[in-house]
Amino acid sequence: MWPTPASLQQTATIYIIDHISWKFVAPINNSLLLRAFTRYSTLFFPPTTYHKQSHPKPFPTDPVIDTLTVDVQAASESDQILFGTDESYTLQVSDSGASIRSPNVFGALRGLETFSQLITANELFYYINETTIQDSPRFPWRGLLIDTSRHWLPVPMILDIIAGCSYSKINTLHWHVIDGQSFPLESKVYPLLNLEGAYRLDQTYSQEDVAKIVSYANDHGVRVVPEFDMPAHATSWGFGYDFMTVKCYQRANDYDFNDGWGDDPMDPTNPEVYQFIQNFLTEMASLFPDNWFHLGGDEVNQQCWNTTAINQYMKDHNIASYDELETLFIKNVNEFVRAKLNKKLAYWQEVFQHTTPFIGDAVDVWIDSNTLKSVITKGIPAIQSFGWYLDHLGDDWYQFYKQEPIPAGVTPAQAALVLGGEGSMWSETVDNTNFHQKVWTRVSAIAERLWSPKTVTDQEDAVMRLSHHRCRYNVRGIPAEPFQPGPGCY
Amino acid sequence: MWPTPASLQQTATIYIIDHISWKFVAPINNSLLLRAFTRYSTLFFPPTTYHKQSHPKPFPTDPVIDTLTVDVQAASESDQILFGTDESYTLQVSDSGASIRSPNVFGALRGLETFSQLITANELFYYINETTIQDSPRFPWRGLLIDTSRHWLPVPMILDIIAGCSYSKINTLHWHVIDGQSFPLESKVYPLLNLEGAYRLDQTYSQEDVAKIVSYANDHGVRVVPEFDMPAHATSWGFGYDFMTVKCYQRANDYDFNDGWGDDPMDPTNPEVYQFIQNFLTEMASLFPDNWFHLGGDEVNQQCWNTTAINQYMKDHNIASYDELETLFIKNVNEFVRAKLNKKLAYWQEVFQHTTPFIGDAVDVWIDSNTLKSVITKGIPAIQSFGWYLDHLGDDWYQFYKQEPIPAGVTPAQAALVLGGEGSMWSETVDNTNFHQKVWTRVSAIAERLWSPKTVTDQEDAVMRLSHHRCRYNVRGIPAEPFQPGPGCY
Repeated sequence: MWPTPASLQQTATIYIIDHISWKFVAPINNSLLLRAFTRYSTLFFPPTTYHKQSHPKPFPTDPVIDTLTVDVQAASESDQILFGTDESYTLQVSDSGASIRSPNVFGALRGLETFSQLITANELFYYINETTIQDSPRFPWRGLLIDTSRHWLPVPMILDIIAGCSYSKINTLHWHVIDGQSFPLESKVYPLLNLEGAYRLDQTYSQEDVAKIVSYANDHGVRVVPEFDMPAHATSWGFGYDFMTVKCYQRANDYDFNDGWGDDPMDPTNPEVYQFIQNFLTEMASLFPDNWFHLGGDEVNQQCWNTTAINQYMKDHNIASYDELETLFIKNVNEFVRAKLNKKLAYWQEVFQHTTPFIGDAVDVWIDSNTLKSVITKGIPAIQSFGWYLDHLGDDWYQFYKQEPIPAGVTPAQAALVLGGEGSMWSETVDNTNFHQKVWTRVSAIAERLWSPKTVTDQEDAVMRLSHHRCRYNVRGIPAEPFQPGPGCY
Repeated sequence: MWPTPASLQQTATIYIIDHISWKFVAPINNSLLLRAFTRYSTLFFPPTTYHKQSHPKPFPTDPVIDTLTVDVQAASESDQILFGTDESYTLQVSDSGASIRSPNVFGALRGLETFSQLITANELFYYINETTIQDSPRFPWRGLLIDTSRHWLPVPMILDIIAGCSYSKINTLHWHVIDGQSFPLESKVYPLLNLEGAYRLDQTYSQEDVAKIVSYANDHGVRVVPEFDMPAHATSWGFGYDFMTVKCYQRANDYDFNDGWGDDPMDPTNPEVYQFIQNFLTEMASLFPDNWFHLGGDEVNQQCWNTTAINQYMKDHNIASYDELETLFIKNVNEFVRAKLNKKLAYWQEVFQHTTPFIGDAVDVWIDSNTLKSVITKGIPAIQSFGWYLDHLGDDWYQFYKQEPIPAGVTPAQAALVLGGEGSMWSETVDNTNFHQKVWTRVSAIAERLWSPKTVTDQEDAVMRLSHHRCRYNVRGIPAEPFQPGPGCY
């Protein structure tokens, strides 16, 4: 099983599963749940060749389990997973049958995934051990960052990524939609953003695509938190709307798509820029139902603002430094979003450094543990991204697995401010050819760290379970790469 | 184009290609050539959306090129590419038509690949510039090592790998067939080798598979040099034939497939071991038509030989050290192969260190440039593998590209002893999910270093050409991964 549940009891008693007459029973009729049953009626019963280990014998023939009761306390058709939504469930397999109980549909989804991982098979039949599980996550924010600006990812691939998240109980897709290189997201208010900003016309997410992605994500218990990074990493905003950015970098040639070139910042002295951002974010607020936005704020090269016009503006408005200018920009946008759009705001840690007191709702820390510690020490919620950069290709799963998000020497109240973390798949060298390969084996390690109890750290045990888990991805059609030699699925 | 030809002249004159009535004309009728024409009649004309750059206008409409003449001086149905086979060709596109001329079919294959890379397209038609190329490789040994012991690679994937080699004019598949973890190769003489040694019954290369691979490789101008690594990395020989190995390592559990565990060495004191190796290599000699074997010889942990029986044998036979014992083993096998099997022998550099004078035909240097220099300084041919380990995932294409195989400060005669080199895809963390992704973008860099003139080193130019080249792999169905951000094929 991956990730390990909070509490698990299993016995050697085994029940044969009747997969032919398999049925789900749910006291509450809910369409999200019905769609999940359809998915899991396939995922429960993969090709039996996938299970190669030795099996206990002889098998009892009675009772046979042919029903899973999924008992959700409350559900409505408009249920939406949000930050902090209860994901707990209990799971029971015994003489009296198999059942999952949960406060809501999202806990039931977690239980269904766990149930799918409890089923094994020999050459003759599927079976399951007598089991009692009480499970809930250690951290509420368990994310995967995807970056669709450095390379486009096709919509069907994003849907697979969402399904892949659910296999490891990852509940947050941090969608770094845009960046300096390209602007692949349709805006109807400012259509030149994507018409001029996308790499290619066929590399744009239409608003219909976004709706599909967001809905598919909710079906899998995954929030979609969009990131609109500003004021830096903004070159692509300027392709269609020249006034938006200060031109600071030049391309070496038509084949230069390196990050430096994408790092033009927005112009914080131009009122049109703020009006534009407000209109754009208002449009986005209705596209993305999650009640969080990520507004970036990382890596501003303030020297790009060293222009005659900007310097004059600063002089005229008594802005003493580029630091002040940066802070001004962040505050302007922040005030609008908080007042008008009803979104909570995550920022990269640079914004924590630029606003005192911090004006967001969580600091996403990409730099190091000391910074995370200083964030929570000030009573501010934090998300760990450092140490979990999936684009650091030399870092293997175990380096990710070893990371403990709660720093040493903090109070329980401070520890409670660590909301969780994210694996970040920055995509400078990742596209549809290699995303799945690079991500799943390693992000699974992060997912267990964020879901399972702190004490789940045994490497040898994790190797065995992770071998199966990466195979599970493969069998489900996602080509996660291996982390050690071996025969593959077995 | 990738790799850059030895000599290239192009003008701005452009000829439209009539791909509908396209034909190949070959004065000599040869079935290998006919099969190549079939392949390239597809590869010449990929989807035109693949070409997105701006195009010269207006186009002349006359003359149109609809024929490629492939004029091979000599060909026979039994032509086999071997080490040193002439791969030169000339290519001409002019008012009088398009032609490739070469001494043999293998030069023609190189010319066909080059021709395929000269064709571009706009929305309306394929076209080609007036071109004169005289081309031949800088080094005769341009290899890719695949390792099918740490992970099995399916046969169709190996065929794709061979085709992939030909796209970058790589002419040698160094097939590290077996290693400590598994023995996936069918032996009819010693059937327990694969029956007990393969990871799984369905992860074995039958002798029919090998024949298919070898024949497909020759069709693509690729030699298959099998490596039978000994005396170390030999655990898997012992699964079916216990006496073959000294048991030295233990598995932590059923999921431990790490390299250490596979490192049991053969027993050099047992005459049965030599008889076994002789019979086995005799069987293999007929399976693999190339006139080279690679016999490994790397990383012997001599402490594994520190057993009562082996120590007694050494005492009885006046063998003073494990170094001597190792040398004895190498010499015994070497003498047999040279006397009976008519194969040239490559070894890893450890064998160079253990036999004075060196008893092989080339030293494959995986350790460093100084060792390569000391090899050629002694007048021994060398193959560069260090610096080109594709499993070093942190090394990007440019680190590979920068490597110059000829060390500084050697004489022309010594330089001539550098036969070439290889990219090595050790497969501890590589299987069919991620082989293509990890290999092609980076091994292409090695391929150009080994084919093109020494002066071809411009990074900016290489970035542009490599962008297209990796796209070429994608369009041809091989998911090579990107090395920088960008829109993909364009």
